Amino acid sequence: MTFANVGRLGVKPGARDQLIEILTRPSTEMSMHGCLLYEVGVNEEQPDAVFVSELWESAEAHAASLQLDSVRAAIAEARPLFSGEFDGYRFDVIGSPLRV
Amino acid sequence: MTFANVGRLGVKPGARDQLIEILTRPSTEMSMHGCLLYEVGVNEEQPDAVFVSELWESAEAHAASLQLDSVRAAIAEARPLFSGEFDGYRFDVIGSPLRV
Repeated sequence: MTFANVGRLGVKPGARDQLIEILTRPSTEMSMHGCLLYEVGVNEEQPDAVFVSELWESAEAHAASLQLDSVRAAIAEARPLFSGEFDGYRFDVIGSPLRV
Repeated sequence: MTFANVGRLGVKPGARDQLIEILTRPSTEMSMHGCLLYEVGVNEEQPDAVFVSELWESAEAHAASLQLDSVRAAIAEARPLFSGEFDGYRFDVIGSPLRV
């Protein structure tokens, strides 16, 4: 079942673009491991946050991705940028009006 | 610029499946008006909520879609199901590691 993970990652002042650079680095490994969508963005009204909207083939694929060496390295690189504020949603996809 | 709208829609107890039925009805009109992704789902830990993750060609396309007759009719149909609790995020997409 397709799994959605959406989050707001709080960053230290001025660190937003650096986190975006890390999160948007091209990765063929993620799609190989079940990542269907991974959109990274910003909201100018909330300058100290990065937003991520992800779709994965399953919740298990998402969980497993966090153990990939490349993902662990990216998380370690990003850790000093985080303010410690995180929130978001996780849900199982039921359907879409764009699919018949 | 691609625009993301993600939300959690609170529903009255027992109304979740009815809202999902409304939100997942096939719509060619939405894609014609710039809707790139519209995933609807649930989280069994939050049974009185429906989650939506959307991507649109632009924030303007999203705003304009809310004025379409079919969308206004769906909102009117859904309104009695809502608990009144809504939250979510809106952001401008900067990039994705899945695109080079």
